[in-house]
Amino acid sequence: MTSVAAYAAPSEAAPLEKTMIERRELGSLDVLIDIAFAGICHSDIHTVRGDWGPQSYPLAPGHEITGTVAAVGADVTKHAIGDRVGVGCLVNSCGECRSCLQGEEQFCARGAVFTYGSTDRDGTVTQGGYSEQVVVTESFVVRIPDSLPLDAAAPLLCAGITAYSPLRRWNVGPGTRVAVVGLGGLGHMGVQIAHALGAEVTVLSQTLSKKDDGLRLGADDYRATSDPDTFRALGRSFDVILNTVSAVIDMRSYLGLLDVGGTMVCVGAPGEPLPVQVMSLIGGRRSLAGSNIGGIGETQEMLDFCAEHGIVAEIEVIPASEINAAYERVLASDVRYRFVIDAATIGE
Amino acid sequence: MTSVAAYAAPSEAAPLEKTMIERRELGSLDVLIDIAFAGICHSDIHTVRGDWGPQSYPLAPGHEITGTVAAVGADVTKHAIGDRVGVGCLVNSCGECRSCLQGEEQFCARGAVFTYGSTDRDGTVTQGGYSEQVVVTESFVVRIPDSLPLDAAAPLLCAGITAYSPLRRWNVGPGTRVAVVGLGGLGHMGVQIAHALGAEVTVLSQTLSKKDDGLRLGADDYRATSDPDTFRALGRSFDVILNTVSAVIDMRSYLGLLDVGGTMVCVGAPGEPLPVQVMSLIGGRRSLAGSNIGGIGETQEMLDFCAEHGIVAEIEVIPASEINAAYERVLASDVRYRFVIDAATIGE
Repeated sequence: MTSVAAYAAPSEAAPLEKTMIERRELGSLDVLIDIAFAGICHSDIHTVRGDWGPQSYPLAPGHEITGTVAAVGADVTKHAIGDRVGVGCLVNSCGECRSCLQGEEQFCARGAVFTYGSTDRDGTVTQGGYSEQVVVTESFVVRIPDSLPLDAAAPLLCAGITAYSPLRRWNVGPGTRVAVVGLGGLGHMGVQIAHALGAEVTVLSQTLSKKDDGLRLGADDYRATSDPDTFRALGRSFDVILNTVSAVIDMRSYLGLLDVGGTMVCVGAPGEPLPVQVMSLIGGRRSLAGSNIGGIGETQEMLDFCAEHGIVAEIEVIPASEINAAYERVLASDVRYRFVIDAATIGE
Repeated sequence: MTSVAAYAAPSEAAPLEKTMIERRELGSLDVLIDIAFAGICHSDIHTVRGDWGPQSYPLAPGHEITGTVAAVGADVTKHAIGDRVGVGCLVNSCGECRSCLQGEEQFCARGAVFTYGSTDRDGTVTQGGYSEQVVVTESFVVRIPDSLPLDAAAPLLCAGITAYSPLRRWNVGPGTRVAVVGLGGLGHMGVQIAHALGAEVTVLSQTLSKKDDGLRLGADDYRATSDPDTFRALGRSFDVILNTVSAVIDMRSYLGLLDVGGTMVCVGAPGEPLPVQVMSLIGGRRSLAGSNIGGIGETQEMLDFCAEHGIVAEIEVIPASEINAAYERVLASDVRYRFVIDAATIGE
């Protein structure tokens, strides 16, 4: 075991603090990564605060990790020392179930191992990317294309793939009419990716305060959901709605925006159940779906797609000492559009 | 206008009674049908009793109509006197919108005209199949294949197409694992059609009281939803769940039965919203969808499919005088599996 500096929550009620965590010795298929940057995802906050269930502490979150390979195990073939690499939400899975064999490790029937707060196959609890180094089995490490900067690419590992996977799965392309609900970390990726896929993109946001950003990121239209006219004017207007908002919304209004056969895909889950009027679905053969990140192969595909189209996250780089302040700003939706921790500051 | 005998509700609070209703004079594209049989659909009861909104009375329900052509307008080409024909839930639509042009008249953007209680393009309110004759524009009249008896074929016009359309839309075929929730009028069609499509079919019913019927109709397995073991044993077991139950069910339990990427399609709508835990969708890229009957072309396709596979409804034929008693039995789920009115008894 090797100790590395990290920022971790000592309990669900306390702010994150600098501490030391253990990384396993390099196995034959492992990659040791010098972490350069780690994005701050909203789910980091939920998890360390126990919103989604009890955790083992101290817990270092972070699943939007970029860096360079510092060492590789004897049998590693996919990566070499010095390679620019990334790690997202997944670090292991059974590799044998139908989902794993189909490259959908996130749906592993035996339970995927998530990057932090998850029990790994060796029984230890995983620790995330708010740290100096991480050891990950090579098949869960992806390549960061040369044209993508490591800081602005970090959020692609979660926010990027979370938006990309459903847009691809629901066949978004030229001619598809896509609405993106919410222009936050996920939404600002969704707009860029849907636009790059050739879709006609509309942002549905509570207000028009980020309209300039939305149009700059590739949206063709931008509407305020606080204006009831939006729902009247846009009835049956969309093939796909990517809902990035983790709040209970008026489903009858939103589902009414879908054309016949359309789908609303949720990538964030409110704590309370969503009340769904089934007639809203029946009346237009509509679907309400959910999507959860993507598999490792699809994550690599997304990174290559983003490199090809010049897509990265819009970020604010912070030193590790500002993580707790950044959390408060995330909760207040006061970030455009993702905080990224400079991992070089973690050991300071 | 021509007066014909019918059974109609005089108000939302009164039982159906024998009365006379008006049928329009035969237009150049109209078909006059001597009605032989009319199925009793649960929605007939909801509609005449005002459960789904105020109606114009007297109102004759009925949208599972079979009979023979008695006369045709001058320009009719699809049907001829003596032809065995059917009319389902739709009798008109705009014919010009995207849905109509795609053969999905049920989703007509200007509002499809339903067979009863709907305002037709000429401003009159439509009257349904609990009557001796009906006049329908030829493009909304389908052929009943010779091998299908007119009585047992009647329920195909609503229950049959309601089950067939989503099973086809969600690509049910050999290898697909399908669950049919509820073995009633819709469910017993769903089991037969899914089986004929080559799927592996499981019935999920409150109890095992209809198990013999379910297996005889083509189910491979039959489980009681009152037994909690059912939900434990069948987790991630289905690709498609056809939910025919118009009641609020525990969505977390049911969605957990879907394998990754699976879809639950609802063809009945409870009055109350369904509480949906979005995490149940996200955790397996699952979808909750709705489906509403089918287009006219697809209805013909379904009839031809049923003829090819020897599929009809299991019915109890009743004289018109027993309609009100039959309604009470439908509400008590005391019918296997559809009442069909012998229209020859309407004028008696």
